[in-house]
Amino acid sequence: MTSFLPIPANSDFTLSNIPFGIFRTSSLSPRICIAIGSHLLDIRTFHENSGFRSLHQLQVDSTVFSAPTLNPFAALPQLSHNLIRAYLISVLTTGGPFPDILENNAELQMKCLHKLEDVTMCLPMEIGDYTDFYAGRVHAYNVGCLFRGPENALQKNYEQLPVGYHGRASSIVISGTNVRRPRGQTGEGVFGECQRLDIELEMAALIGRGSSLGDPVSTEKAREMVFGYVLMNDWSARDVQAWEYIPLGPFTAKNFATTISPWVVLPIALEEGGYMVQGLERWSKTPVQPYLQEGGANMIGVDLEVRINGETMTKTNGKNLLWSFNQMIAHHTVTGCNMRTGDLLGSGTISGEGEGERGCLLEATSGGKNPVKIGGEERTWLKDGDEVVIMGHCGEGEKRVGWGECRGKILPAKPLQ
Amino acid sequence: MTSFLPIPANSDFTLSNIPFGIFRTSSLSPRICIAIGSHLLDIRTFHENSGFRSLHQLQVDSTVFSAPTLNPFAALPQLSHNLIRAYLISVLTTGGPFPDILENNAELQMKCLHKLEDVTMCLPMEIGDYTDFYAGRVHAYNVGCLFRGPENALQKNYEQLPVGYHGRASSIVISGTNVRRPRGQTGEGVFGECQRLDIELEMAALIGRGSSLGDPVSTEKAREMVFGYVLMNDWSARDVQAWEYIPLGPFTAKNFATTISPWVVLPIALEEGGYMVQGLERWSKTPVQPYLQEGGANMIGVDLEVRINGETMTKTNGKNLLWSFNQMIAHHTVTGCNMRTGDLLGSGTISGEGEGERGCLLEATSGGKNPVKIGGEERTWLKDGDEVVIMGHCGEGEKRVGWGECRGKILPAKPLQ
Repeated sequence: MTSFLPIPANSDFTLSNIPFGIFRTSSLSPRICIAIGSHLLDIRTFHENSGFRSLHQLQVDSTVFSAPTLNPFAALPQLSHNLIRAYLISVLTTGGPFPDILENNAELQMKCLHKLEDVTMCLPMEIGDYTDFYAGRVHAYNVGCLFRGPENALQKNYEQLPVGYHGRASSIVISGTNVRRPRGQTGEGVFGECQRLDIELEMAALIGRGSSLGDPVSTEKAREMVFGYVLMNDWSARDVQAWEYIPLGPFTAKNFATTISPWVVLPIALEEGGYMVQGLERWSKTPVQPYLQEGGANMIGVDLEVRINGETMTKTNGKNLLWSFNQMIAHHTVTGCNMRTGDLLGSGTISGEGEGERGCLLEATSGGKNPVKIGGEERTWLKDGDEVVIMGHCGEGEKRVGWGECRGKILPAKPLQ
Repeated sequence: MTSFLPIPANSDFTLSNIPFGIFRTSSLSPRICIAIGSHLLDIRTFHENSGFRSLHQLQVDSTVFSAPTLNPFAALPQLSHNLIRAYLISVLTTGGPFPDILENNAELQMKCLHKLEDVTMCLPMEIGDYTDFYAGRVHAYNVGCLFRGPENALQKNYEQLPVGYHGRASSIVISGTNVRRPRGQTGEGVFGECQRLDIELEMAALIGRGSSLGDPVSTEKAREMVFGYVLMNDWSARDVQAWEYIPLGPFTAKNFATTISPWVVLPIALEEGGYMVQGLERWSKTPVQPYLQEGGANMIGVDLEVRINGETMTKTNGKNLLWSFNQMIAHHTVTGCNMRTGDLLGSGTISGEGEGERGCLLEATSGGKNPVKIGGEERTWLKDGDEVVIMGHCGEGEKRVGWGECRGKILPAKPLQ
């Protein structure tokens, strides 16, 4: 199965993927698109030019294709996402069943194809609430050791429920947005520029269909509520965090910026590719509560990499989680909290067991005590000018399903006025 | 200064107040209004019938009066809120400067006045992010004693910064909404109906004009960002909270429902009335950081009352806070977090020193150990069918400025399916 559009070797955006996003250009307002190879397809223009005319079963309010965010599209039933994605695959395949739609339609190709480097990607969704979990057990254990010592590293509740906390939605930014080094309080009478600026390597889920207040969601139903997944960098001011986080959790140490990738990979792409895998085995002998039970391969087996200024800092895999996104949703709603289209759920930092598999500098450097070598350079925390890129993909070649990049550069703290 | 409209004795909605809200009826879609005595004035209809024609200086996009939420109106500069409120006061005053607008205009009175009992109040704003602070030091100390003992009751950071955490915006509901008793995890292997359901008496601020990502807001600028204040009940499942809250803070114990009052009282009404007062004195000898410094009377001296099933549980005052809302905003944005129109900031539970001044049952009953008498009844936690009402007002008679009610009733847990 090949496309008539060029798909470079190692492209994340194969015919097996078809991730959704929102782009704009100097002349086009924000609109829905999908990525294919080194191009994107403007779905709004495609639709306005009858690109969906051969999809007779399409029973969706077509205004979802004209919206400036993915929210109305994401709110459709998952079956509709899957149907539309399958149709787009067939339209993009060489010698597919509908050659008149795009393959042999140079005019429509001109109208709705753009090179990825020619557009600006936007936040894919209007995010309602953002919740960050802590499901990366290796990370939770390592950080717990640093903050509270090995005996209290993992609290008693850790293996009984997906520990999480509400985050800040207003400061979620799209890949490519620069991040200002924050100032803050780091101790009694101590205020200044953050000296321990860090990253957190995460995967995150965006909610498609929401749920009602008062109605807990089962893990099975949760599967149908996930619209798709993005890469996430949950920037963290560790010195601020250590001072402020007791007893109510991280606050200003986290809410200055959280970066997500522009491309939303649908669950169906990962399932079709066979990329869902088993996560970590529980250590606790106490059975998991029925509302959190979930069988089978429920983790994204995504190969993740973090680069700082082009040099590899970390390589790890998305399977290093104790709780799946479905379990997170089931827990999030267990007391009756409702979910809305566009809510974002972060996995928590993903780290593997080995050195070179740490999802943040706090872990990699043991709290700044042991610098790590990245490229030729010893480093502890992020410096001004550092550019951090997170990448992730499953599989290779024609079957590769990836996210592209989640990128951000550290600007110096703003001059005091 | 009297109104030609009836203002009952002890009304919260005098000519000195003029709070804003959103109402609907079976025939009218949600729209902006103000309360006056036992009536509300439909501001949309008032505007559509040229009610603002004598306000020559009005230079606002008049679509703000047709919106289904207060967000566009709140996003105007504070000066515009104040001007429009002052105009409405003059229009509603007997023998005011513009008698033709409403006083001698029976037709417009018919069109835009409704009795409060004939309408349904809605959430006043579309809430972006919700943040709950912990500025009630009496409460923080008492709860700290229960959870961690007197020595660690107040953490070292407590007097250095307004401790707070991100809450859940999706489950904020309007006064009058019933609240389901939640189920949840309360210990290792323990799951069931919440046995320690509680209230939290709070004041909350709604943001008018927002701020930009990366730009910390001073306490002075913060004053101009507050659109107004509401009463808030931050329902809490204490048994769930105790089990889940370490190390990242409360989560499912709080996110099942938070109730706010429908009427938003503007800062100007409190300032004009002389109702802003000094808060608690700091104990710490370490000077407060410059970015948090704020002089003068910065707390709302509101007399607060909580009733359960009509019986008084608590009487206290809004001055029992260590940090003002301006200081909360300054801290919230110190690392660069942006604020958006419609963001909600809770004060944290407000308790006074005396018995009968506790803002939650956790404190009033010392964690359920010592039942309190409410009406004729001994009680520890909320029972099914309990109806909780929070009320608040400043001053009396013609100068009274109040919020009406923040009401909610506990429904039994949903039957398991």
